Amino acid sequence: MEVKNAENEGPQTKSAGSPPGVVPLYVSFDTTHLEPYLPPTTLPPHPQGTTPALPHVTLTYAQSLDSQISLAPGTQTMLSGPETKAMTHYLRTRHDAILVGAGTANADNPGLNSRLANGDGIVGLEKQPRPVVLDSRGLWRPRRDGKVFELARKGEGKAPWWIVGAEGRLGDRPPGYDEAVRLVRESGGLVLEMREEKDWKEILGLLAVEGIQSLMVEGGGSIINGLLEAVNQKYVNSVIVTIAPTYLGKGGVTISPNRTGPVNEARLDVVKWISMGQDVVMAGRIKDTKE
Amino acid sequence: MEVKNAENEGPQTKSAGSPPGVVPLYVSFDTTHLEPYLPPTTLPPHPQGTTPALPHVTLTYAQSLDSQISLAPGTQTMLSGPETKAMTHYLRTRHDAILVGAGTANADNPGLNSRLANGDGIVGLEKQPRPVVLDSRGLWRPRRDGKVFELARKGEGKAPWWIVGAEGRLGDRPPGYDEAVRLVRESGGLVLEMREEKDWKEILGLLAVEGIQSLMVEGGGSIINGLLEAVNQKYVNSVIVTIAPTYLGKGGVTISPNRTGPVNEARLDVVKWISMGQDVVMAGRIKDTKE
Repeated sequence: MEVKNAENEGPQTKSAGSPPGVVPLYVSFDTTHLEPYLPPTTLPPHPQGTTPALPHVTLTYAQSLDSQISLAPGTQTMLSGPETKAMTHYLRTRHDAILVGAGTANADNPGLNSRLANGDGIVGLEKQPRPVVLDSRGLWRPRRDGKVFELARKGEGKAPWWIVGAEGRLGDRPPGYDEAVRLVRESGGLVLEMREEKDWKEILGLLAVEGIQSLMVEGGGSIINGLLEAVNQKYVNSVIVTIAPTYLGKGGVTISPNRTGPVNEARLDVVKWISMGQDVVMAGRIKDTKE
Repeated sequence: MEVKNAENEGPQTKSAGSPPGVVPLYVSFDTTHLEPYLPPTTLPPHPQGTTPALPHVTLTYAQSLDSQISLAPGTQTMLSGPETKAMTHYLRTRHDAILVGAGTANADNPGLNSRLANGDGIVGLEKQPRPVVLDSRGLWRPRRDGKVFELARKGEGKAPWWIVGAEGRLGDRPPGYDEAVRLVRESGGLVLEMREEKDWKEILGLLAVEGIQSLMVEGGGSIINGLLEAVNQKYVNSVIVTIAPTYLGKGGVTISPNRTGPVNEARLDVVKWISMGQDVVMAGRIKDTKE
């Protein structure tokens, strides 16, 4: 299968060709190696009145050789090359939702849509994943002109969902919180409340009830590290990591789970390494050794 | 080219087959991808009376996905699989010397020879690398029955060289130092003195004068991290890193150089990723961007 991806920002190949100065970049890669790690392309909706199964969770991120995802907290760092970036945009079309933490959402102003090319534009809304911001303390402060809202207005992405700590737990609503809630709701998005702090069963259950059957977790560091801990590994169906051949050097945001036992915190199984451009992509499943 | 490697400890296939209970494991891998990163197989000795060129330095180690080489300082951690271990033993035959730090030498009691199979035994002494222990503070405390001496006695490895801080710098010789010096000299090894603390030009120069034209640096963490810093990158000719699909979790020995500038400390170039068993091997050269 050939995947085409318009790499540059802007309206790209949408309608009547590219605007002056914007050159769409087409990158091909073979997606067959990744297929065994991805959720099924079609699943029947769960029957009314039954408890839905938790979504298939794909944990995915790009790191340096020294396992850092950015040079500093709140800094977006260019790590992966065009091929692995195209892969990310392909993966986004294969999941019902993408989840990031509030820190990432605040720092990166991410679009969280797929810019995969499809005929003369990017893939249609039905293939776009639902952006989900996980935020137990209610700290996401989206701007009205944030990418995620602009894409929703243009029909190039879905309106975001915001999973926040229940109002009782937030205490006095932090400044800007109510305004943010309004923005999300006006865009057509949802605000979902969770009772527990970091309970992945609850988080995935909330999403399942809303019809999400597959979830791609993209960051940031504390969310990834949390899911890699022994107690949460059972919720992760597959791990897809891009490694870029660079050393950021000490001081950035590091991916390494807390070690909760005497040995390796997580081992992977059914591992495939796929060379893409300058990077390598590892796909695997977490070995069932602990929980 | 096929490389065979007897994986188990012990006398292996040496003379009249394996001893009872010892099963030699033969592992094949294709070495052609690595060739561009290795020193030439034969180099003429440098002409008498001239200053020899610094040796070709290959930096090589095995790490987890979270860029750790062991679970804790002084702990030897099984990371790489049989295929990448076979590669390491092949690489050892392609270098005149292997260098490790005193911490690694004390903790691991390493043999630092090549157990590559060659006909009915391991490769001959002429193909064995010179073990070198780098130890500015004179802290290596080898035991008389240490692996490196046993291998030298059996003719399966060369006697070690010990690079120590000059006596003046060591101050009062630390306890056990004189005994260690005697051991090394009795084994046929050398004790070389360096004037500076961490001056790779001096260290490589000392080895070059003794005829070393290629050096494999294997660890531990502080030596690898030091060589990856911008100021030392010019001494590294190639980097060969094995990545095992596991997360050790926070608290181990991490490979990540100090960041001495605002951006990535080291970028690699001419990168090749080679899948070997469950692991991947990255071979590359450090991009000349800083010094």
